[in-house]
Amino acid sequence: MALASHETEIRVRYQETDGQRRVHHANFLTYFEIGRTEMLRSRGATYRQFEEAGLFLVVSEASCRYRAAAEYDDLLLVRTYVEKVGGASIEHGYEVIRDKTIIASGKTIVVCVDREGRVRRLPDWLLE
Amino acid sequence: MALASHETEIRVRYQETDGQRRVHHANFLTYFEIGRTEMLRSRGATYRQFEEAGLFLVVSEASCRYRAAAEYDDLLLVRTYVEKVGGASIEHGYEVIRDKTIIASGKTIVVCVDREGRVRRLPDWLLE
Amino acid sequence: MALASHETEIRVRYQETDGQRRVHHANFLTYFEIGRTEMLRSRGATYRQFEEAGLFLVVSEASCRYRAAAEYDDLLLVRTYVEKVGGASIEHGYEVIRDKTIIASGKTIVVCVDREGRVRRLPDWLLE
Amino acid sequence: MALASHETEIRVRYQETDGQRRVHHANFLTYFEIGRTEMLRSRGATYRQFEEAGLFLVVSEASCRYRAAAEYDDLLLVRTYVEKVGGASIEHGYEVIRDKTIIASGKTIVVCVDREGRVRRLPDWLLE
Repeated sequence: MALASHETEIRVRYQETDGQRRVHHANFLTYFEIGRTEMLRSRGATYRQFEEAGLFLVVSEASCRYRAAAEYDDLLLVRTYVEKVGGASIEHGYEVIRDKTIIASGKTIVVCVDREGRVRRLPDWLLE
Repeated sequence: MALASHETEIRVRYQETDGQRRVHHANFLTYFEIGRTEMLRSRGATYRQFEEAGLFLVVSEASCRYRAAAEYDDLLLVRTYVEKVGGASIEHGYEVIRDKTIIASGKTIVVCVDREGRVRRLPDWLLE
Repeated sequence: MALASHETEIRVRYQETDGQRRVHHANFLTYFEIGRTEMLRSRGATYRQFEEAGLFLVVSEASCRYRAAAEYDDLLLVRTYVEKVGGASIEHGYEVIRDKTIIASGKTIVVCVDREGRVRRLPDWLLE
Repeated sequence: MALASHETEIRVRYQETDGQRRVHHANFLTYFEIGRTEMLRSRGATYRQFEEAGLFLVVSEASCRYRAAAEYDDLLLVRTYVEKVGGASIEHGYEVIRDKTIIASGKTIVVCVDREGRVRRLPDWLLE
């Protein structure tokens, strides 16, 4: 069971489609990133504050399974889950939903590093 | 062992970097796509011909592990492997290399479909 | 004086920033496009319907002046104006505003074409 | 007459196309940026060195006229011109050419700033 979850809506931009008239697959990683960002914001924090404190979350793994195409102007629901929290990393899961159908699902692992790229413990305020 | 492999060079564009001064992680899926494209071209075919024949390769799975950051102006070597060929799908593996160090590796599965989105056998000329 | 105007909000995505920690300048053209899209939607139409009718709006000119940087997570207001409507083209003006300050302004001309790329009159329902 | 000019080739990526099966118009600003970068490199300098010296070139104006569509896999020639050099700014002109036909042309003005965003004189080594 996920430790936490959050939902955010994304309207597909024309620029995100490709010659197949569907959202280019790489953009789903950007949708996941928006999901993480908005989940954090919903808890009263922002990733911007995180960087202002000299810490960065870098993606160490990302994967996505594509089940159906998303098209221009579709209104997508991105559901973001916190699956696991380690000392310095967080694993998120994602579902991208259109009209109650999951069209893509994915996973990322982000690792906390400082300006020099050294792995650092996640700050306490993030874990709460 | 891979069924085939190919190498292509990519120069990192400023537009591909993000506020962490590294290549945004989603762009590696685009680098993989360039790897697939150039591998096909090196065999005397192009993906454009593929679409002109009414067939499309859609990505059904993609994943990437990031080991080190790529930065603006880096000259990257993308090594693309054909790992497995099914009746209607191809699994590729990838390594992104800078100065002989693998900075990222990944995998994709592409599926052959027609204009209506129906799964279709890979054409013989592609398999050869 | 503008013939019509519309405002829409855009939250800056991490993926849109570049190594200078500001929104990469090319993305402002995408923000303008979102402004056009949402202006149309606010009038009860969508650009998707437009394409379903076999018509396309292609950009024939675009320009932007950048006054201040937009940064990750900024909440931007995009103000879109219809400046001029011709038989087959529309000229839009744009202002991108953050905290009541205009950080960029721009202009585009879009031309109506059919599937074969021939210039076509704008449909009446769009002009109303 | 231009003060200097340079040519570089760009192969259109699938990711750069949009639902109209043409290169999304915003990407031409990225093509222009590649033109500037490669022009600098051809003179034995890199923009990376520029930033390592604590200086940045930020785009203050950009414009583009689109005459014909670029499509996936097209091999484009980007011709970059230095049109004018001021104390702190450079104006470039661009032509994007396919098969000897100009499909787009544009202009940018970049301004030299330091880390704090203050306008700074262009370094002498760049002007030479």
